[in-house]
Amino acid sequence: MKSFTLNEINKQIKGTLLGDSNQRISGPEQIENAESHHVTFIGSRKYEKLWDNSRAGAAIINETLNLLPGEGRSFIKVKNVDLAMAKVLEMYDPGPPVLEEEYHSSAVLHKSVKIGKNCKIGAGCYVGENVILGDGVVLYPNVTIFDEVQIGKNTIIWSGTVIRERCEIGAYCILHINVSIGADGFGYRPSEGCVGLTKIPQIGNVVIGDHVEIGANSTVDRGKFSSTILGDGCKIDNLVQIGHNSVLGRFCIMAGSSGLAGSVTLGDGVIIGGSASIKDHITIHSGATVAAGSGVLKDVPAGKTVLGYPAGDSREVLKQWVALRKLGRI
Amino acid sequence: MKSFTLNEINKQIKGTLLGDSNQRISGPEQIENAESHHVTFIGSRKYEKLWDNSRAGAAIINETLNLLPGEGRSFIKVKNVDLAMAKVLEMYDPGPPVLEEEYHSSAVLHKSVKIGKNCKIGAGCYVGENVILGDGVVLYPNVTIFDEVQIGKNTIIWSGTVIRERCEIGAYCILHINVSIGADGFGYRPSEGCVGLTKIPQIGNVVIGDHVEIGANSTVDRGKFSSTILGDGCKIDNLVQIGHNSVLGRFCIMAGSSGLAGSVTLGDGVIIGGSASIKDHITIHSGATVAAGSGVLKDVPAGKTVLGYPAGDSREVLKQWVALRKLGRI
Amino acid sequence: MKSFTLNEINKQIKGTLLGDSNQRISGPEQIENAESHHVTFIGSRKYEKLWDNSRAGAAIINETLNLLPGEGRSFIKVKNVDLAMAKVLEMYDPGPPVLEEEYHSSAVLHKSVKIGKNCKIGAGCYVGENVILGDGVVLYPNVTIFDEVQIGKNTIIWSGTVIRERCEIGAYCILHINVSIGADGFGYRPSEGCVGLTKIPQIGNVVIGDHVEIGANSTVDRGKFSSTILGDGCKIDNLVQIGHNSVLGRFCIMAGSSGLAGSVTLGDGVIIGGSASIKDHITIHSGATVAAGSGVLKDVPAGKTVLGYPAGDSREVLKQWVALRKLGRI
Repeated sequence: MKSFTLNEINKQIKGTLLGDSNQRISGPEQIENAESHHVTFIGSRKYEKLWDNSRAGAAIINETLNLLPGEGRSFIKVKNVDLAMAKVLEMYDPGPPVLEEEYHSSAVLHKSVKIGKNCKIGAGCYVGENVILGDGVVLYPNVTIFDEVQIGKNTIIWSGTVIRERCEIGAYCILHINVSIGADGFGYRPSEGCVGLTKIPQIGNVVIGDHVEIGANSTVDRGKFSSTILGDGCKIDNLVQIGHNSVLGRFCIMAGSSGLAGSVTLGDGVIIGGSASIKDHITIHSGATVAAGSGVLKDVPAGKTVLGYPAGDSREVLKQWVALRKLGRI
Repeated sequence: MKSFTLNEINKQIKGTLLGDSNQRISGPEQIENAESHHVTFIGSRKYEKLWDNSRAGAAIINETLNLLPGEGRSFIKVKNVDLAMAKVLEMYDPGPPVLEEEYHSSAVLHKSVKIGKNCKIGAGCYVGENVILGDGVVLYPNVTIFDEVQIGKNTIIWSGTVIRERCEIGAYCILHINVSIGADGFGYRPSEGCVGLTKIPQIGNVVIGDHVEIGANSTVDRGKFSSTILGDGCKIDNLVQIGHNSVLGRFCIMAGSSGLAGSVTLGDGVIIGGSASIKDHITIHSGATVAAGSGVLKDVPAGKTVLGYPAGDSREVLKQWVALRKLGRI
Repeated sequence: MKSFTLNEINKQIKGTLLGDSNQRISGPEQIENAESHHVTFIGSRKYEKLWDNSRAGAAIINETLNLLPGEGRSFIKVKNVDLAMAKVLEMYDPGPPVLEEEYHSSAVLHKSVKIGKNCKIGAGCYVGENVILGDGVVLYPNVTIFDEVQIGKNTIIWSGTVIRERCEIGAYCILHINVSIGADGFGYRPSEGCVGLTKIPQIGNVVIGDHVEIGANSTVDRGKFSSTILGDGCKIDNLVQIGHNSVLGRFCIMAGSSGLAGSVTLGDGVIIGGSASIKDHITIHSGATVAAGSGVLKDVPAGKTVLGYPAGDSREVLKQWVALRKLGRI
């Protein structure tokens, strides 16, 4: 376990230290649970009230708050508590598990696989024909990579994740647990001369940029033809569905349990709230935000925030909600 | 296959038997599909009507219903059909699959792992450094357990489930298929001096109490720091998302496809209906119920039932729905 | 990589070819990305406008559109572009990955397993006692099949998918990545004499018909007793939840992130839109459609389309939405 003095912590976050700079801190902890060897965070009045009854030894606190640390306790006063917290977490981060062997003997690697320097491949992994892994790629145990997949340098793939044939993953990505990349898109046509549906082959792939993170149990379907694309820096939460031939620009965010039907286009920097869903063939232009729980049935202009089901301009929908509440009381 | 006489069944459910107590029953079956060797259940008028045309040999029936079994068929009359059904299912339960070997030779166990008595570890499992498994723990094939994880006695982990480093699982838990425990929380900060987002390290863990059940393909993220917590007796259905630093009290229920964003607090005995979603930093107090499909945007007081999107007092929202239907007809 | 001349393509789609019948085409591509060796598709005015600036060498185009291919480029004019596209995708389909070995040496097969002709079992698979695999079944790497499961001929199971004991899968099915079949239904009863819930054993199974496809990370729970049933030809998208004892007729479609609570009945040919959810014990009769995002709280008659939350007749709900928008503007 790592441990730092308040002085060492303050070197990273560049605040004003009130108290004992040699006080040793074992890690960050929430204000209700913290002990004397912990540092906690006070960003607002809400947490300010909890300080007196907290056992925390130190706090990183918003410089605008009028509070004193008290006997034997310390403060570091900062402009931006959230940023300071991120820096402190970086200091105490123990890092992900380190696999002991380079390639575990139980991993099954096709002889044609090209593996960069400093890669790790865990127990029970399967890596198919002509796969290319960049330098520093980590496949944790029980990952499955099909033929012709390419993975960029320093990308980490967690256990249970499966990447289907011919998909391309960028550099510095993280694919969390049980992610499904490149399963067939959901496409059928009426069967000729009989009832039911005939499967349309899904011969495209998935292309994921650099610095993309995909949450646990999320799914990105391959294109019917051409590619389903996630641009650089996209951050996708857990249990998110991305349908075939959807195209996400750069730096898009999709929160948990949200979903894109097929052929949805997101510009750059689009934010999709949790549990929101977007109809097929919709375009959400750059900088737009879809509020949590919304169902989007038509295109969203750049920079706009939409809300509700059906999703509309957020201010208008809020007025509708107020009107409906009044109506219910009549 | 197990088989019992009606007399043996009645010993468990303590009802009033009308008919042949030696009649042999191979198991329970739905009234439409049952044959003469099956017992079925008649809890309400709806099923009463189906009895004449059913081929079931026997039925467990609500004692308030005025129905006779008829020639060569039998009834057990009981106060509570649902409870009797549960008892009958317990009698006929064939139990989960039994793994033949204690530790399958293809499982990969770090030499530091501490394993209790009567554990079973299936083929293809990976168990990392310093993992502690209590007595009677079962890991079905292809489970992945990372370093420093602790699992309490008699907990069962089904195939495809992954538990990340430093998480703690209680005793008598069941984690179903393809569950993801302890993936990184969804936390970023604006990058300094350039576009995009920088990942905030997620250095906490997940702490799960005793007698907790988590459904297939559900996800519980680790805390940013400190823990994401599920109290004793929580029952979580399939495809449920529990965000980082959420804290569930005891005996909470979350139905299928529901989700908690980050830092949500549930009191004890909270019920979240299917597909409902809860905004981040919301508290839902003890005994409250969120109806299926709701989207909760503000705190819910103890014992209250909320409904709708945005969720409100259920009686008020039902009135709004009525008012809106009328409005649509004008 | 496959390659065909326009003449060979036209033999399959039976249109009218304008241009060089010997032009060689490496595959289909979207109109914005296509090069001279690609064929693209023009089904509507929207794509017609893009033709002049496209670099595509050829297009398959709706015969009602008044457009000429232009210098050195070709058209195949057809009645139904979508059907022609499906046929072209079939021509260029490279097919799924082919496993080199019949049964990989790292797969763990119980000695009692019965395996048909021409099956393939990938690395890291587990196949339990008395499992029966029909001819031509493919288990890709890291699939887990529990005891007494039966799988019909030519069914394909992708990596990460788990099928629990005693479930039955039909012929010509595709189960995509990380699918969970036969996990326990979500059933509890109040504990006797103490707080909390007692698990009701889930002793039924899942029965899946022929030609069924189930998307990545979807879940189908086993029956409490009797079976959860998916009829022939059902097509289920990603992240779909099907609760215990639900019964789907033939040719039902469930789009991504939709869900059925327990004991839901779907007739034949029912369509459930993306992210829609259906309350327990509801019946949706044959040919009905539930629009995307809807929450269904009562039965839906045959052939009807419902929309909204709570779901109602789609025309009525659209009127309510219009009325609400007006109300918000007052």
